[in-house]
Amino acid sequence: MTLSREVQLAARPVGAPKPSDFAVADVTLPPLQDGQVQVENLFLTVDPYMRGRMNDVKSYTPPFALNETMTGGALGRVTESRAEGVPVGAYLLHDQGWRTHANVTASRARVVPAIPGVPLSAYLGVLGMPGLTAYAGLLRTAEFKAGDTVFVSGAAGAVGSAVGQIARLKGAARVIGSAGSAEKVAHLKDTLGFDAAFNYKDGPVTGQSVAQQLRDSAPDGIDVYFDNVGGEHLEAAIASLRVGGHAAICGMISVYNATEPSPAPRNLAQVIGKQLTLRGFLVTPHYDLYETFVQEIGGYIASGEMKFDETVVDGIDSAPGAFIGLLEGQNTGKMIVRLGNLE
Amino acid sequence: MTLSREVQLAARPVGAPKPSDFAVADVTLPPLQDGQVQVENLFLTVDPYMRGRMNDVKSYTPPFALNETMTGGALGRVTESRAEGVPVGAYLLHDQGWRTHANVTASRARVVPAIPGVPLSAYLGVLGMPGLTAYAGLLRTAEFKAGDTVFVSGAAGAVGSAVGQIARLKGAARVIGSAGSAEKVAHLKDTLGFDAAFNYKDGPVTGQSVAQQLRDSAPDGIDVYFDNVGGEHLEAAIASLRVGGHAAICGMISVYNATEPSPAPRNLAQVIGKQLTLRGFLVTPHYDLYETFVQEIGGYIASGEMKFDETVVDGIDSAPGAFIGLLEGQNTGKMIVRLGNLE
Repeated sequence: MTLSREVQLAARPVGAPKPSDFAVADVTLPPLQDGQVQVENLFLTVDPYMRGRMNDVKSYTPPFALNETMTGGALGRVTESRAEGVPVGAYLLHDQGWRTHANVTASRARVVPAIPGVPLSAYLGVLGMPGLTAYAGLLRTAEFKAGDTVFVSGAAGAVGSAVGQIARLKGAARVIGSAGSAEKVAHLKDTLGFDAAFNYKDGPVTGQSVAQQLRDSAPDGIDVYFDNVGGEHLEAAIASLRVGGHAAICGMISVYNATEPSPAPRNLAQVIGKQLTLRGFLVTPHYDLYETFVQEIGGYIASGEMKFDETVVDGIDSAPGAFIGLLEGQNTGKMIVRLGNLE
Repeated sequence: MTLSREVQLAARPVGAPKPSDFAVADVTLPPLQDGQVQVENLFLTVDPYMRGRMNDVKSYTPPFALNETMTGGALGRVTESRAEGVPVGAYLLHDQGWRTHANVTASRARVVPAIPGVPLSAYLGVLGMPGLTAYAGLLRTAEFKAGDTVFVSGAAGAVGSAVGQIARLKGAARVIGSAGSAEKVAHLKDTLGFDAAFNYKDGPVTGQSVAQQLRDSAPDGIDVYFDNVGGEHLEAAIASLRVGGHAAICGMISVYNATEPSPAPRNLAQVIGKQLTLRGFLVTPHYDLYETFVQEIGGYIASGEMKFDETVVDGIDSAPGAFIGLLEGQNTGKMIVRLGNLE
């Protein structure tokens, strides 16, 4: 019998989630069934989309149930197998996160290769869902092409930092990012190779709106906007997009905690005259790109051309705090929860 | 020497335009130059997009100059020609509207055929810019395909009534329209073959929001939204669009007169989960479709499968009133100004 320590949703957050919205419980795993493997999780991920699942509203994924263990991305090592082709010792990317151990249906999981020099936690970030989100959103949804000027909001996050670098590596004329602190802005420019970056939280201090900061960073306008933030950022991007421009709408972290409908963007009518395309997307339908993506981005990482950041928090009991911190912007790059199961 | 009676912009309207924003003047035409023809205009068009050009702001077309004659679509008969291939007596579709006579550069105009049974004024409407806007916006921008459920706002207007009928003729599962009076709603259902239609102005009376009226008309959701109105209509459409749905944003007549930025749609974040595409467009880049379009839609009109409406106002001095009435929704179908030049 295996004990798993698991994070459950104790209450539906109102606005920003707080620690008392979560509870940690020890759960005994049932016996393995045919087609399942048991894993000990090495790394868990917390992601902004999970905030939506904490509300009791219909969305693209069903809401988390109260007083049950939440789900999410995880990387585990197989400790017992009743599934063909998934041996004990294999590393498995699966959706039974928020817990230390899990029985996983192998057909719904993916065995990942151990690439020398690439840490396993990368499969939850730059080589996982956030990385593929960046890759598919930029190349497919936003129809990026070499020579485009690209603006990405939330650029220091797991998705945003990959978007900016992929754009640069694929021939963008100029890559601009926004982030929420001076340190993140410096990191974008000094480490990740962004051509320009600004701290959108400067606005209330300097009187410079996001729209003005973007105009200063991209005086000739932008061709592609990759939106992780929504609200004022989307409004600024619409103002700066050139004729025929594209926006890939990936997330709207600025409105996830909102308790009332958000009004922006007030300049939406500009999509007509500028013939803009705004396209919302999820990563799910783009997994056909996964092998190509892992090969290409894995290569960039191995060669050092692409960097990635992790903010690592230790222990299952710290997972709720990691999630709360993520929504507050405390991370640089992917927010990862590391469990004590590494050999 | 030819005298032309012309409508000039006397003042930039604030909010809704009023008669004193316009003036009528008699102007002597200069001598014809090589490559030009002189026309007497038979029909003029007034269109919602002209409201934007009356503001002194950069848009997709430059603003009208104060105290100069405005421009716009017109159908004229050639009375004098210094252009090869455009003989006296030809019918010419051109952009020197808002006046009785004009010197037109032939290369910037289009000779149209006189089709038996199709009135010449149709070239300003269902066989002209509004019709092509409907055709290209539905088929290209919104990527309509047979089996789709289509919602069009402003459905009794020149563009909207064409959108709904083209969708029906091309195999839509269901066509829903909104309009601003009970008479227009009856016309959509009884004459134009819409499957459902509602009067959005009922909302404040019955307490039924546009969103609720649309849900009642399309309980299983919609695949395509053709937007002529913006605001609350776009918000309602986003709520009803199914996964992977498309919106072609053609106009936002609800916000053209606004003196402050408009806040809707408040539910824009739904584009992510439902993977929606919102695409603004202008008709200009789609004139490569014109010949195909005239042949196809001309055929539907000749066979009686497609109907079109005109609201006709007589005389150049009535043109400002026709435009003001258009923005107030006094038209059913294309608003046309008929001049006294018909033989």
